[in-house]
Amino acid sequence: MIAAATPAHVDLVVAAAEAGKAVFCEKPMALTIAEADLAITAAETAGVPLQVGFNRRFAPDFVAAHDAVAGGTIGTPHQLRSITRDPGLANPAGVPPWTIFLLTLIHDFDLLLWMNPGTRPVEVHAVADALVAPEFKDAGLLDTAVVVITFDNGAIATAEASFSAAYGYDVRGEVFGSAGMVTAGGGARSSMVHATSSGRHVETVRGDVELFLDAYTAEFIELADAVREKRAPAVRGEDARRALVIALACIESVKRGAPVSTSEMEPG
Amino acid sequence: MIAAATPAHVDLVVAAAEAGKAVFCEKPMALTIAEADLAITAAETAGVPLQVGFNRRFAPDFVAAHDAVAGGTIGTPHQLRSITRDPGLANPAGVPPWTIFLLTLIHDFDLLLWMNPGTRPVEVHAVADALVAPEFKDAGLLDTAVVVITFDNGAIATAEASFSAAYGYDVRGEVFGSAGMVTAGGGARSSMVHATSSGRHVETVRGDVELFLDAYTAEFIELADAVREKRAPAVRGEDARRALVIALACIESVKRGAPVSTSEMEPG
Amino acid sequence: MIAAATPAHVDLVVAAAEAGKAVFCEKPMALTIAEADLAITAAETAGVPLQVGFNRRFAPDFVAAHDAVAGGTIGTPHQLRSITRDPGLANPAGVPPWTIFLLTLIHDFDLLLWMNPGTRPVEVHAVADALVAPEFKDAGLLDTAVVVITFDNGAIATAEASFSAAYGYDVRGEVFGSAGMVTAGGGARSSMVHATSSGRHVETVRGDVELFLDAYTAEFIELADAVREKRAPAVRGEDARRALVIALACIESVKRGAPVSTSEMEPG
Amino acid sequence: MIAAATPAHVDLVVAAAEAGKAVFCEKPMALTIAEADLAITAAETAGVPLQVGFNRRFAPDFVAAHDAVAGGTIGTPHQLRSITRDPGLANPAGVPPWTIFLLTLIHDFDLLLWMNPGTRPVEVHAVADALVAPEFKDAGLLDTAVVVITFDNGAIATAEASFSAAYGYDVRGEVFGSAGMVTAGGGARSSMVHATSSGRHVETVRGDVELFLDAYTAEFIELADAVREKRAPAVRGEDARRALVIALACIESVKRGAPVSTSEMEPG
Repeated sequence: MIAAATPAHVDLVVAAAEAGKAVFCEKPMALTIAEADLAITAAETAGVPLQVGFNRRFAPDFVAAHDAVAGGTIGTPHQLRSITRDPGLANPAGVPPWTIFLLTLIHDFDLLLWMNPGTRPVEVHAVADALVAPEFKDAGLLDTAVVVITFDNGAIATAEASFSAAYGYDVRGEVFGSAGMVTAGGGARSSMVHATSSGRHVETVRGDVELFLDAYTAEFIELADAVREKRAPAVRGEDARRALVIALACIESVKRGAPVSTSEMEPG
Repeated sequence: MIAAATPAHVDLVVAAAEAGKAVFCEKPMALTIAEADLAITAAETAGVPLQVGFNRRFAPDFVAAHDAVAGGTIGTPHQLRSITRDPGLANPAGVPPWTIFLLTLIHDFDLLLWMNPGTRPVEVHAVADALVAPEFKDAGLLDTAVVVITFDNGAIATAEASFSAAYGYDVRGEVFGSAGMVTAGGGARSSMVHATSSGRHVETVRGDVELFLDAYTAEFIELADAVREKRAPAVRGEDARRALVIALACIESVKRGAPVSTSEMEPG
Repeated sequence: MIAAATPAHVDLVVAAAEAGKAVFCEKPMALTIAEADLAITAAETAGVPLQVGFNRRFAPDFVAAHDAVAGGTIGTPHQLRSITRDPGLANPAGVPPWTIFLLTLIHDFDLLLWMNPGTRPVEVHAVADALVAPEFKDAGLLDTAVVVITFDNGAIATAEASFSAAYGYDVRGEVFGSAGMVTAGGGARSSMVHATSSGRHVETVRGDVELFLDAYTAEFIELADAVREKRAPAVRGEDARRALVIALACIESVKRGAPVSTSEMEPG
Repeated sequence: MIAAATPAHVDLVVAAAEAGKAVFCEKPMALTIAEADLAITAAETAGVPLQVGFNRRFAPDFVAAHDAVAGGTIGTPHQLRSITRDPGLANPAGVPPWTIFLLTLIHDFDLLLWMNPGTRPVEVHAVADALVAPEFKDAGLLDTAVVVITFDNGAIATAEASFSAAYGYDVRGEVFGSAGMVTAGGGARSSMVHATSSGRHVETVRGDVELFLDAYTAEFIELADAVREKRAPAVRGEDARRALVIALACIESVKRGAPVSTSEMEPG
């Protein structure tokens, strides 16, 4: 179970794999394609499962949305959306540059890939700024980002992130297709509604543990099941690599102020 | 168009009918069965339409609920519920005794009869109190009531009213049956939701005109159509009489502290 | 942990208490007041905690609703509602008479008592019928019931149950008071919504384990905490007795076809 | 009242203005900046009001959202979203190229400008494809588009359109800011919900008249009020021009496959 700081991930994955252990690695598994490949190869060579912590794939509402898409409910995906708005930025000074793409939106990239199965992202255009904490912009902190991803089946996806949602922890997804739409997320703390002289009110989820407790539990169960059943887990090193390609394309897109082809991210 | 004070209704209906006019009468059309029969007979004799102002039958959400029930979506009704909570009590001193049954819940009684078509109410049990303005209880003001109505098809309905909802004007209905349930109402002012540090918020409807503007318009259109098409309107004097039977049974039930058979309300 | 058939509960509670064990007993703890008192006395004498399985008190949405009421959000309760609609009736022939009051609505009675703290139920009026499975009515099966409970603070509560909701497991509560309203429950399986050519759809919860998994877990945690902290648990034998008084009054009310005073249920 | 085919708009606006008439012109008022300026100048010279048919500004839910934003509820806007998904494409062969930007998303561009007051759009990046009717792509029909607009206050907006939503007419907006979020739209036909063995269902709006009847009425009332009160209407020729700049930048962005500065759209 690798939940160390990001730069330590790959070495730990390799060491664990070489020790013959099944590996669970928090996202992002790696920060470069070369490192991602190293981790994937190490697990393959050792013949151990390598699962990555894309917990949204185990949240009941996103699972239901995915199953509806996979079951054909919405036809062919045309437009997708994934949002991550964190409840706040505790320590802006401690946030490494490009965190919004590499650590935050990496979840959304994986979700979009999962929700649009059998396709490849072709082009990525990212816009980002420091709107929450502009005083840290010069230090490289980008706290607000919007990304447009074009897929080879024509589907167009947007991913949005903010490091500070006043109303709590906002994680949502939407897939719109030729036969309909699914949405998931919303952030209500429970079904409780109270109505007073100022209207109707719903309490909102404030933290990731509250929002994803079931998902965190389910992803560990998945690894245990994969080990017991001697099969690959549902979310693998390759998935981390695919999401990383998009994150790296975002960084390049912001630098250039232009769309970037995902193929450019692949090592020569 | 008769929208005078309730005690004047029947005389005005009779006069209008005798003058050959199509008649729209606000609810309650009459306060006694004898008077209701007088009005109905006058309209019949004159051959004019007599429509009663049960506006909920023309509200789009209640129409949709009714159509779903009539279309068999929920199977046979087993349990029904209708609620009226008014936004406040401007002048408790001016409210005649039994208003909550004769003027307020009369809407709910009509709705329940409409939503459970082809049946007859058999027994009525009402409980009422002065909880909003207890200081007016001795003067006969009951501002809170719950009514249970048993129908001859076994369905059991509840009707609830309060003269003071802090959050606005709350009118809702529910029909539960062998194959499902419909609900209508809710009181959101629009689809707008705002989320702030205190959670998610929806503005609520504050007055009857805001809630029922479309219904008020549609019921007048119905009368115009009925006149033009030389047919009876959708809500007639007989409907006013049927709802009145339940209201009178409620009054008797509160007096006795016991359930009352609707047949007792019919003139000997 | 006593989850045996209901008639065995009290003997097991007494035996466990005499053995010095902390006791968790599924609802209903007892079927008569005398037996309830026996169980309560046994636990008191032995100095052991006696917790009863009213799981709704531990469901997050009902806890949030209760906290809002207890915190004064809705002012003084005026009208309350609690609903239990089970997803189906597997074996009507095996259901003992009065189950709907003693085993099903007992949850709702406890909830209503909990949501209207510091009050006593004064009068109970129950109406019940066999609408789901009328062929079992002669055998004493009542599968549909509506109960009105009047409290000594004037509040009027309704409790409704059906043994067969086509759309799943429907457990809801509502408390309306001088300053507002809270509602809880709803039965959506997750936040996932899908929209197709036939409109917008939400999947509904189908079973009690799915709906109440968190509550079942939390009530056991409560007992463990109570034992560790050497204190009484949140839901006790006395609570089972209070809910039982209402259930017994319902049975008497159905037999008489009239409201029944709760004081009549107390042993001479 | 100018509701002719788009190419006829400007000549009609000019003729009406020269005749001294108050002018209402359907969107888009013009297809080029030069023509937009012609219309604006004609109205100014004649001293007549010139209102443009951006009806969303008069829809109750969008008005409520706008008022919440204008009232500071959500702080400074950081991310905005506007969606238009039409219920279907009756005659793809008859749709002129760039319609999705010039006639459809023009509504969204106006909405985004209105929701982010006091700012200017700086850069526009558009991606579009023919996913609904790919057989018409060669003829220039783009039926699916996603646009990212960067504003001079740093806010990043997305606008999305599709010519074919299976579930009806889907118009939504979202403004997320430093202190919260507002959302508007949703497409429920009424508050009616029905639940059956296949879950819970809400009927969805199918056409623009159903969705925007109140807005269409309100925009005509606005013009009448503006004339009576001798003031400019709420939505003017200048607003049409501002939205057009974004639409033209979208066309250029699709052609180039790159972001386009709005300043490039201004005539030399």
